[in-house]
Amino acid sequence: MRTEPSLEDIRQAHERIEPFIHRTPVLTSSTINRMVGGELFFKCENLQKAGAFKIRGACNAVFSLSDDEAKRGVATHSSGNHAAALALAARWRSIPAYVVMPENASHVKKLAVAGYGAEIIFCKPTLEARERALAEVVARTGAAFVHPYNDLRVIAGQGTAAIELCQQVQKLDLIVAPVGGGGLLSGTAAAISLVSPEAAVIGAEPERADDAYRSFRSGRLVPSVHPNTIADGLLTSLGDLTFPIILRHVKDIVLVSEEAIVEAMRCLWERMKILVEPSAAVPLGAILSRRLDVKGRRAGIIVSGGNVDLDRLPWVPKG
Amino acid sequence: MRTEPSLEDIRQAHERIEPFIHRTPVLTSSTINRMVGGELFFKCENLQKAGAFKIRGACNAVFSLSDDEAKRGVATHSSGNHAAALALAARWRSIPAYVVMPENASHVKKLAVAGYGAEIIFCKPTLEARERALAEVVARTGAAFVHPYNDLRVIAGQGTAAIELCQQVQKLDLIVAPVGGGGLLSGTAAAISLVSPEAAVIGAEPERADDAYRSFRSGRLVPSVHPNTIADGLLTSLGDLTFPIILRHVKDIVLVSEEAIVEAMRCLWERMKILVEPSAAVPLGAILSRRLDVKGRRAGIIVSGGNVDLDRLPWVPKG
Repeated sequence: MRTEPSLEDIRQAHERIEPFIHRTPVLTSSTINRMVGGELFFKCENLQKAGAFKIRGACNAVFSLSDDEAKRGVATHSSGNHAAALALAARWRSIPAYVVMPENASHVKKLAVAGYGAEIIFCKPTLEARERALAEVVARTGAAFVHPYNDLRVIAGQGTAAIELCQQVQKLDLIVAPVGGGGLLSGTAAAISLVSPEAAVIGAEPERADDAYRSFRSGRLVPSVHPNTIADGLLTSLGDLTFPIILRHVKDIVLVSEEAIVEAMRCLWERMKILVEPSAAVPLGAILSRRLDVKGRRAGIIVSGGNVDLDRLPWVPKG
Repeated sequence: MRTEPSLEDIRQAHERIEPFIHRTPVLTSSTINRMVGGELFFKCENLQKAGAFKIRGACNAVFSLSDDEAKRGVATHSSGNHAAALALAARWRSIPAYVVMPENASHVKKLAVAGYGAEIIFCKPTLEARERALAEVVARTGAAFVHPYNDLRVIAGQGTAAIELCQQVQKLDLIVAPVGGGGLLSGTAAAISLVSPEAAVIGAEPERADDAYRSFRSGRLVPSVHPNTIADGLLTSLGDLTFPIILRHVKDIVLVSEEAIVEAMRCLWERMKILVEPSAAVPLGAILSRRLDVKGRRAGIIVSGGNVDLDRLPWVPKG
């Protein structure tokens, strides 16, 4: 059984999704480069459709289905960017999408998912309730389950951002991606091991949701216990597909404090003039707080998403 | 005497500044396109060096000087993006920059200009005090005065954004730019009249700073009287160089309410995930408030700048 995407899988994923997604720009800032003593190349997936890299994996999964499978729709559980991405990809294929969300999910996120035309199934905010609700909707509709990250089609799709980055910028010494469930990090690492094996892939994770770090160090899959970080896209634990890929191809995972995440987020807003969500600021947070040294090196950064609530910014107005 | 830049002037300007500036990306949003019923292409000069298109004109002026002229430095009066841009361009040429600023300019703006290494000369916040301070610094240093907009080198430089836009997107029906002193609008209109004369150039101006609108309608240069708008980059009046170019090549100037400016600004932040300053939101404000119809048309929008104070956002948090 296949346990990681091949170059062919990732190339096919890219071909499949390219007509639908943005080829996002790579931005640079001389000011930030001076601050860190290296050259940073920001692959701006916050400027991607539906505001995050998640559309890459979701779109690849949706368009990988046969017509027969597809017509019964797709289903997932997520209260975040994957839910909106799957809903949008399903709309592109004109098939139904069913999204199981905890009833306490934020209003903004419910609106986004509903806005793309998905049917939302609310459940109590527990793991058991979520899995029962998902099983029920799959049994009722015959929809294909698309896991937010522990799915080879999703992993291959997420890897396409790194493929583009390597086409847009040559000779990167390292590539840094945030890590939550590991879909982006494993996809990036698999892709880079195939197209640019000389570049090191590094995961950046919040200190207060450090299951990937602990799993990576111990070599055993350690679940996330009471994670509590502003980087709310990174609360989930690694999966049994993403973890082995990360073990094989990722060079290191570094931890980032809450303060460093907020500082990096504000730095990206002020210096780069882009909106990024806290999760997307974790790699720069690692660099600014000296957990990751880029002196004299060329580093690609996957800026994972830009979905923030403008009414709840994580800094206190000084005005 | 030359009264507007030729194609050769604009091409030379582009060649001169290209090694220093970003070729900014053109972004699109299906959601915004659906909202307005047309196709909008945002030329993101908010992602430009120093956060605004102003570096194009300033850089062209600075690198147009002979070595003899240049060594005495450059001077200007501005409390905004032009001051920072001129300071940065002077630093690239390793020459002094002198910036006359009103003593009540915001702390953020003083920091930006000083951060690029310019010498700041403070004056009382009146026109007379400003002109006297500028005359004094020019007499003392022999620096070359670079006006924020009423200067053919500056106008040619600003026109290069439109040249790039036309290379990045084909078959635009119209191009919309904000108008304050008219450097960007006249440069855009001159460039488009030369490379894409079939496209209409439209100026968008705040209702509460409507001198360009009134000048354009009456055919006589009407100064700005007590302008008062959140779009603080557009407070200045047209100049005797920018106005005739605008009269010759601009198809229309439309007015935008304060509410529409803030709505468009928030829309660009939320939907496009980019920071834009209020002045940069005026063109989209014109479209969202139906002062400018883009139904079924392809419209380029020059997003002029992204320099905002994150501690003073023009919306009330709902959280």
